[in-house]
Amino acid sequence: MHIYPFLQAVRDKHPLIHHITNWVTIFDCAQVVKSFGASPVMAHAPEEAGAMTAIASALALNIGTLTTEVVESMKLAAAAANHKGIPVVFDVCGAGATAYRDQKSLEILDAAKIAVIKGNSSEIARIAGLEVETKGVDAGQVSADLREIARSLSGKRGCTVVITGAEDIVAGDGKLFLVRNGHPMMANLVGTGCMATSVIGTFAGATPARIPEAAAAGLACFEIAAELAVQKSDGPAAFKQQLFDCVFRLDERQVEALQRVAAAE
Amino acid sequence: MHIYPFLQAVRDKHPLIHHITNWVTIFDCAQVVKSFGASPVMAHAPEEAGAMTAIASALALNIGTLTTEVVESMKLAAAAANHKGIPVVFDVCGAGATAYRDQKSLEILDAAKIAVIKGNSSEIARIAGLEVETKGVDAGQVSADLREIARSLSGKRGCTVVITGAEDIVAGDGKLFLVRNGHPMMANLVGTGCMATSVIGTFAGATPARIPEAAAAGLACFEIAAELAVQKSDGPAAFKQQLFDCVFRLDERQVEALQRVAAAE
Amino acid sequence: MHIYPFLQAVRDKHPLIHHITNWVTIFDCAQVVKSFGASPVMAHAPEEAGAMTAIASALALNIGTLTTEVVESMKLAAAAANHKGIPVVFDVCGAGATAYRDQKSLEILDAAKIAVIKGNSSEIARIAGLEVETKGVDAGQVSADLREIARSLSGKRGCTVVITGAEDIVAGDGKLFLVRNGHPMMANLVGTGCMATSVIGTFAGATPARIPEAAAAGLACFEIAAELAVQKSDGPAAFKQQLFDCVFRLDERQVEALQRVAAAE
Repeated sequence: MHIYPFLQAVRDKHPLIHHITNWVTIFDCAQVVKSFGASPVMAHAPEEAGAMTAIASALALNIGTLTTEVVESMKLAAAAANHKGIPVVFDVCGAGATAYRDQKSLEILDAAKIAVIKGNSSEIARIAGLEVETKGVDAGQVSADLREIARSLSGKRGCTVVITGAEDIVAGDGKLFLVRNGHPMMANLVGTGCMATSVIGTFAGATPARIPEAAAAGLACFEIAAELAVQKSDGPAAFKQQLFDCVFRLDERQVEALQRVAAAE
Repeated sequence: MHIYPFLQAVRDKHPLIHHITNWVTIFDCAQVVKSFGASPVMAHAPEEAGAMTAIASALALNIGTLTTEVVESMKLAAAAANHKGIPVVFDVCGAGATAYRDQKSLEILDAAKIAVIKGNSSEIARIAGLEVETKGVDAGQVSADLREIARSLSGKRGCTVVITGAEDIVAGDGKLFLVRNGHPMMANLVGTGCMATSVIGTFAGATPARIPEAAAAGLACFEIAAELAVQKSDGPAAFKQQLFDCVFRLDERQVEALQRVAAAE
Repeated sequence: MHIYPFLQAVRDKHPLIHHITNWVTIFDCAQVVKSFGASPVMAHAPEEAGAMTAIASALALNIGTLTTEVVESMKLAAAAANHKGIPVVFDVCGAGATAYRDQKSLEILDAAKIAVIKGNSSEIARIAGLEVETKGVDAGQVSADLREIARSLSGKRGCTVVITGAEDIVAGDGKLFLVRNGHPMMANLVGTGCMATSVIGTFAGATPARIPEAAAAGLACFEIAAELAVQKSDGPAAFKQQLFDCVFRLDERQVEALQRVAAAE
């Protein structure tokens, strides 16, 4: 699979990506979108959540610091995205940690057509109906077959499912992609999961006709930048700065030489 | 125009700048104020928005992630600022993107005496009553004469108007200043516009008798720091770090050698 | 006092630290916890504030950008923490700046058993009932004997009291510790006070049987990292990056060679 054309599409079209996301990593979500050459916007008031979505190319939702009011705005924004026909990427951040978070995740999934459900192993396992142990927003252990969970949930919900981890799994349109880029340092930086969701939204917004491929390409580009960034870092904060700037400078040669995306059975 | 005395006033008086601002760049707004030698505070509860303003030297408002509740707190804070006689700087962030944002902007402008209205070209054009196309919080194209828009809105509202861009326009008290400092890299970093508003608030809080000059001087200092910062940066995140630290270390020689502020007809 | 075993306990147990905190420094609070080797989570919805606390090892509260709704969630979370028997660390951020902030601080203190009250000199003096002048969230002058204030408030509230400053004072369980680590550069960076609260929560979560010692050890480790960081910094933003990464890399030799923690009368 050629990855670079997906990055090129982002840089050519610089799509506007509307976010309703959490308050912890909201800047980082915006900056990663901008570093890739797209435009971020964040607007969670119910009075304008739909109108802002209507001028965007994709919608990214993240329940990291959800409230009932903000979830209502997410539903309004998702309805507007469905009406316009742009992809909605949904990060089920912290699913499994509380019953409230599980319930709100399912409400959002039932209220609108979601293009991509994204989470770590325990979050997606929970959304797929399994019992899991979590550590807040960090992944817990999941013994089940993650590829099978992704494939099954993708079929059940009629959407693309992304499980991030040492090996990212992307299941959608009857296909399965494995992204083996990235570095363990990513786990020492708060927000890499949230940023990955914004990246998937950015790539899906630029190439909406091929969502699973766009998601895999976006993850690969983000994680290749992480591999480059870690070489110049002696801790998570130096890594963070390099990560944004390696994204900003990412070129075709780097992408095609380093990408480790495989189509699986 | 001598710029450095305005910076010196900030460092001598270290004014307290109260903010009701957005959740994306709230840290950066606080840090730029602190890096200039002043004190930031952020308090949006309606019960204390006025009381916190009453101990401040200026109030900075930014509707980047507005809600109806937060706008009500902005009105309370602005009323307290008017009562105390301290300047209110209002960033009409995202005006033109949704009807709700336009309406709330006008509500705030009508509810209180605003010292400085600040935005990019499409935001200010919208506030001036023109039809515009926007890209969320990024500037859209405006074909009209920006200097004339600034001058006219300044006259209509009886305040200083700042339009940021490659050339910043500052219109107020019947005068017009052009600030030609800055660097295109600023557009690759989320939050430079929001930070500029905090900087204007900081300089206006230190020199409230000369608001248009203080606004121009503040923009020039911030953008000179950006010019110095970009020399040591290979991407937007490295630039961000350098920007804060070049602000922190900015000295008289740098300011007077690099400033490109002109008074215009 | 040996400091390193407290850091080792954090790294061995990597406790989950639940936060209900402010929107300015929320990322930095999360990242400092993660850099120390623990896990942060932030969840302020009243529907899940208690449930998230129930899977955590400590709760950190900070009223920097309080609202009445968020304070209600803090009370729910604190009740859950009391029920589970995990420590609650409460940063009375901005106490003394407005009557509302004072009132809400006392409400929280009266509603639940707090393990550690933490603030700067004027904040703690205000909570102890003295009249103070403040500058928003920055410390004002306090002429009274700070050690006596800490000791007295600790006795009155039956908890540990931490006053941060050039010399940090930790009073609890009838003991008094003085932490003389740190650097004036910390005052140029927004959020060092908030981060210190998260650090105290992290160390208290790992060693809940010895709260005053854990608080002193956490402050010492954080401030030793600051001393190391400032050597590589030419401004507050470079310092911030180094601070996180010096925390991440902090080792036993550094901690024991540089710690300046004294038990006082």
